[in-house]
Amino acid sequence: MAQEEVQNGGTEKVAEVSFTALKPQLMVEAPKAADAVQFYKSAFGAVEAGRTVYPKRKAEQEQPHVLSAQLELAGSTILVSDIADNSTPVKTEGTGCVLCLETEDVEAAIAKAVSAGGVAEGEVTEGDGACCGGRVGKVKDPYGYVWLICSPAKKCGDAEA
Amino acid sequence: MAQEEVQNGGTEKVAEVSFTALKPQLMVEAPKAADAVQFYKSAFGAVEAGRTVYPKRKAEQEQPHVLSAQLELAGSTILVSDIADNSTPVKTEGTGCVLCLETEDVEAAIAKAVSAGGVAEGEVTEGDGACCGGRVGKVKDPYGYVWLICSPAKKCGDAEA
Repeated sequence: MAQEEVQNGGTEKVAEVSFTALKPQLMVEAPKAADAVQFYKSAFGAVEAGRTVYPKRKAEQEQPHVLSAQLELAGSTILVSDIADNSTPVKTEGTGCVLCLETEDVEAAIAKAVSAGGVAEGEVTEGDGACCGGRVGKVKDPYGYVWLICSPAKKCGDAEA
Repeated sequence: MAQEEVQNGGTEKVAEVSFTALKPQLMVEAPKAADAVQFYKSAFGAVEAGRTVYPKRKAEQEQPHVLSAQLELAGSTILVSDIADNSTPVKTEGTGCVLCLETEDVEAAIAKAVSAGGVAEGEVTEGDGACCGGRVGKVKDPYGYVWLICSPAKKCGDAEA
């Protein structure tokens, strides 16, 4: 661990900072954010808590631009936003953020998501530890995001699985 | 809304499903997950709650393969994982998941993340609604993920900003 601490900057003093919330924001090709919100409601039972939009600026525009729709899901908040050409958030270069959703009934959850328009990928597998859980299945949503549907997590540990 | 409901499948009956947790899983190019965990601790004060690893399988391997490290951050859980050639999660095709972190002190949070090795992008801006908040700045971490550092969210609404 000493190795990582050196590369992380060393002696510079920085303020204590505390964070009050973490919200994954799913960027969606405009103007599909409204459809994506509807999908997350149908597929996962997400509840919309609010939406901030820009009004239509062009006559031919059918939907307002969604700056941010706030969805409550599994005790967390996710944001769904239309990507604009001039938007602040840029396309991430990460190797990919996947969303793990824990449920007691993995098969029923996958069936419901597929019924709403998601695509199941692969089989439900047991115990590869990806979610620190037991059974894991995978659904890709129509907006390109991958959801891992997992049985509830055991405590992660150095199981050396 | 009726429009979206039609495309979401209509009459097929599906079971009620409830979800107990949502955890963003950040996939990181192997074997950098351990470094990424250290970065999230230094930059954001994340606390590691557990880690599941595969033991070293090759003599030349310096670090075990991280299946999943569980980090507590801002009341949420994130998972950080090494991507393996044969891993279950695939690279997402979404236009990009961004992580919004809310804090009372946006500038101090950005300074701390930069001190840990992140790169600040652009200026701190006011009120574009991306996080339903007020002030928003952006930090890209060394693993390609974009974090929006936001002042605490106001209730999202149809503000027609």
